[in-house]
Amino acid sequence: MTHLYNDPAAFTEDMLGGFLDIYSPYVVGVPGGVVRAAETPPGKVAVVVGGGSGHYPAFCGVVGPGFADGAVVGNIFTSPSAQQAASVARAAHGDAGVLLITGNYAGDVMNFGLATQQLRGEGIDARYLAVTDDIASAPTSEVDRRRGIAGDFAVFRCAGAAAEEGADLDEVERIALSANAATRTLGVAFDGCTLPGADRPLFRVAPGTMDLGLGIHGEPGVSTSTMPTAAELATQLVAGVLAEKPAGAGDRITVILNGLGRTKYEELFVLWSTVSGLLAESGHTVVHPEVGELVTSLDMAGCSLTVMWLDAELERLWTSPTDTPAYRKGRIINGDKAVRRTKAVDNVAAAAPHTDADAESQLCGAAIASAMDQIAARMVHAEAELGRIDAVAGDGDHGRGMVKGAAAAAHAATTATGAGSGAGAVLSCAGEAWAAQAGGTSGVLWGAALTAAAVRLGNWGMPDTAAVTAALRAGHDALVQLGGARLGDKTMLDALTPFVAAVESAVADGNDWRTAWTASAEIADKAAAATAELRPRTGRARPLADRSVGTPDAGAISLTMCIHTVCELLEELS
Amino acid sequence: MTHLYNDPAAFTEDMLGGFLDIYSPYVVGVPGGVVRAAETPPGKVAVVVGGGSGHYPAFCGVVGPGFADGAVVGNIFTSPSAQQAASVARAAHGDAGVLLITGNYAGDVMNFGLATQQLRGEGIDARYLAVTDDIASAPTSEVDRRRGIAGDFAVFRCAGAAAEEGADLDEVERIALSANAATRTLGVAFDGCTLPGADRPLFRVAPGTMDLGLGIHGEPGVSTSTMPTAAELATQLVAGVLAEKPAGAGDRITVILNGLGRTKYEELFVLWSTVSGLLAESGHTVVHPEVGELVTSLDMAGCSLTVMWLDAELERLWTSPTDTPAYRKGRIINGDKAVRRTKAVDNVAAAAPHTDADAESQLCGAAIASAMDQIAARMVHAEAELGRIDAVAGDGDHGRGMVKGAAAAAHAATTATGAGSGAGAVLSCAGEAWAAQAGGTSGVLWGAALTAAAVRLGNWGMPDTAAVTAALRAGHDALVQLGGARLGDKTMLDALTPFVAAVESAVADGNDWRTAWTASAEIADKAAAATAELRPRTGRARPLADRSVGTPDAGAISLTMCIHTVCELLEELS
Repeated sequence: MTHLYNDPAAFTEDMLGGFLDIYSPYVVGVPGGVVRAAETPPGKVAVVVGGGSGHYPAFCGVVGPGFADGAVVGNIFTSPSAQQAASVARAAHGDAGVLLITGNYAGDVMNFGLATQQLRGEGIDARYLAVTDDIASAPTSEVDRRRGIAGDFAVFRCAGAAAEEGADLDEVERIALSANAATRTLGVAFDGCTLPGADRPLFRVAPGTMDLGLGIHGEPGVSTSTMPTAAELATQLVAGVLAEKPAGAGDRITVILNGLGRTKYEELFVLWSTVSGLLAESGHTVVHPEVGELVTSLDMAGCSLTVMWLDAELERLWTSPTDTPAYRKGRIINGDKAVRRTKAVDNVAAAAPHTDADAESQLCGAAIASAMDQIAARMVHAEAELGRIDAVAGDGDHGRGMVKGAAAAAHAATTATGAGSGAGAVLSCAGEAWAAQAGGTSGVLWGAALTAAAVRLGNWGMPDTAAVTAALRAGHDALVQLGGARLGDKTMLDALTPFVAAVESAVADGNDWRTAWTASAEIADKAAAATAELRPRTGRARPLADRSVGTPDAGAISLTMCIHTVCELLEELS
Repeated sequence: MTHLYNDPAAFTEDMLGGFLDIYSPYVVGVPGGVVRAAETPPGKVAVVVGGGSGHYPAFCGVVGPGFADGAVVGNIFTSPSAQQAASVARAAHGDAGVLLITGNYAGDVMNFGLATQQLRGEGIDARYLAVTDDIASAPTSEVDRRRGIAGDFAVFRCAGAAAEEGADLDEVERIALSANAATRTLGVAFDGCTLPGADRPLFRVAPGTMDLGLGIHGEPGVSTSTMPTAAELATQLVAGVLAEKPAGAGDRITVILNGLGRTKYEELFVLWSTVSGLLAESGHTVVHPEVGELVTSLDMAGCSLTVMWLDAELERLWTSPTDTPAYRKGRIINGDKAVRRTKAVDNVAAAAPHTDADAESQLCGAAIASAMDQIAARMVHAEAELGRIDAVAGDGDHGRGMVKGAAAAAHAATTATGAGSGAGAVLSCAGEAWAAQAGGTSGVLWGAALTAAAVRLGNWGMPDTAAVTAALRAGHDALVQLGGARLGDKTMLDALTPFVAAVESAVADGNDWRTAWTASAEIADKAAAATAELRPRTGRARPLADRSVGTPDAGAISLTMCIHTVCELLEELS
């Protein structure tokens, strides 16, 4: 929803005030919208775009050299008035006429149409064009009833670039029509947007579903389906748009994969990785594609795929330089001297499994690999719960980190076992893989602990109780040294330290390490549970105001899960 | 929430695949992240930034000339491993050393610290620095425990620009430390983000409240307060950050007003308009500020304000050219010949009230102004309901448009009445103001109808029944001509046409227009209600799949409200 506003009724004016302030080198305000800060030079056609606001960077964000000369800015999702359109056009007009362009919406068509008439009455050569790229909004038989959505961006840009090149008004109009005829968009919505001050969204899309054919003003789509994977959606969008390839179009295209506002860059890149492959497979060459937020709809969740088929003229215009508040294209830094990398870089050192081991140590290594497997399985099961616990005070990534780390460790341990490694080498490989694949705080700590412990196990003979106890102590100390946490800081250490002490104590009482381990598990459990009463150190990933009192530390809890997994394995083996 | 993914566990890899594909002119992938497509030239220090992903354009989006040489890309909100950091640094390294920088998080500090040790062991001069700009995450007495949030962007940028200028590793490190010491950020959250595949957000902020001091990994803030207005929030953020002005800092600053993902550009501009004024009032000169999404947190709602106090060195670096996938700065198009506009443009023609009127027509004009006032009041009352009806099939802006239009019309009518205008002039001013201020479809149609009707009322004598009936017909016909709708298209026409016909019929039966009007109101009501059964024309703002069957047309409903307001006024006057 829209959270930031003063008087909702003055939202557009407030927004425009801030926009004009920050982009004063580019634009100045005029009644009804904005025009470039520089005068339109003699002989240059003015291109004036517009529509309701709420679509930033469309449309005031693309006023500048190589793009629009002015933008008419209506209220949120509302056409500007004819008076506003005429006002901006008058201010943008030099002496060579003005082309007004909007998306094809009833209000825009009427208001910009009236403005065009009015301008002509004043002796200004004015033309008007409405973009019709949205293939979901009307069948091919009624192309002129289609709405304009993200394809607006492509058409406006080509018209603006043509005017910048010095084309006369007839030419600019012809090129805009040509760009519109070559442009197709298909969009989807996952959730609605909320107008400033409104207490509910304009529309909702049921969780787990998707609406095909959204409009950029929050109009719901034309059909609803189950939410697909990113790859399935890519297939659907590419197929839909390519099915509308204009007659006589070639195989060079540009593409806009547009986010509506809440569908973020990372998601668009995931989608793009499939879209790009499908377009290549279909025999198209993609020229200067754009993936990002170009025509938004407040905080609506959704995206659209636009294809503009390029002839030589449109390709030249689409790739020409432009410099506007929100969209910049062209050479900034001279790259002549740059040497492009010619070969792939692959420089992550892999731990070499240690193969100099005897049968007993190999057997122990296999047991370690088995334990890692079971820990990995347990973490998958516990992921959501650990994530929830972690999110109370931290960033909620603990479950994911443990899953990634344990899975990598299990895989590496199994590989090492298969190569005949002994206990120490198996555990060392597991630790290095854990740290390398999991990342994060827990990953590096588990990695350091396992690697340090591995040294004490060796690769020769079955490790005895002294060796295992020493390994446990070495792992503990490595963790303390690297992590820098102290007891009571509400970390996994608060469970590990009492556990290691209990094992050592039980061993000192003459127990075998297996008995000592199993007997000490309960102490780890209690210590982990007791972290619920602790207040974590502040700073870094931990907030000052501790809301986590009452919730145990996720790292301590996941540690006890690992301890218990080893207990279960010891019971099976005994 | 995150809607687009394939396997949530492979989200980062999929994202990176798409990113590398679209930005292949800028970057190439290496194990652990990305580096520039061009080799690091001899003598140039490499600046490697990084951290968990989910923050785009931070951090892979800022790899390029003038900014970073490489970015280490961890899983969502998770530190990359030491192995990954070392791998990217090795690939980015030329022959002049490497500076690694991250935000100050436990996992990043450990992993990048280990990577730095490892690189040094390999003979690469490596340094590491953690950014600590988040003033909410620890008190001033513990600055080194503060987190790095949007200030990362400013520090990374200055370090990258220094390396681009040819500074050696000592210099680049010194400048990065200097930039970090000069940078302060305060952030707020309005709602949490959801990890790919998760079924609930990492955290929630209660509706109507705000969390102060958010972390960029979705960590909740340090205190909760009632959601302020944009202006109040601006005051709070500016005061908070300026209170931490570094000792000895001057009055030149740069500013980043950063959106976390779901808080959109329009909202940030609204906020900026107050922030900018407050900073000027406080005696600061703002140099090249940035308002937009620079360090995001998936689809988290919130924003942050960063101030970096500039000395001559930092100002030179901050304003230097840079060319990266997501951030470009510097001259693209030669603007030497551009002539900056020197005067404000004010070219909206105001309708001049007609003052050549007799007392009777002036009286009628006053009655029209009174009707407009009451219609405006009624529309304020009906706004939410009309918006809801309109949102079923359209874009939900009808209520807002009617409020804006009627208020403007009432104001213009009252002004014209005060200037002594007659009935026709008052109605004409009202119509022109309605169209100019409301915009949208309904605005231009109401404006055209009222203006056409006005001509028939004249400014001399009390309009008789023939004149009023002719005015009603003229208004109807203007609306038909401009709007192009036909009966049955589910528009206001479906109520207006039967109403006008009924009035004409009653007048033909010998009734006075007042009686005819009042008697026909019920016909308009029934016709408006009957639009619930109609299916609107598709295309433009109306979707193909008509979900609005069962809901009447918002324009028809608001028309009946206006008709009834006139009925009530006639009753009062009689």
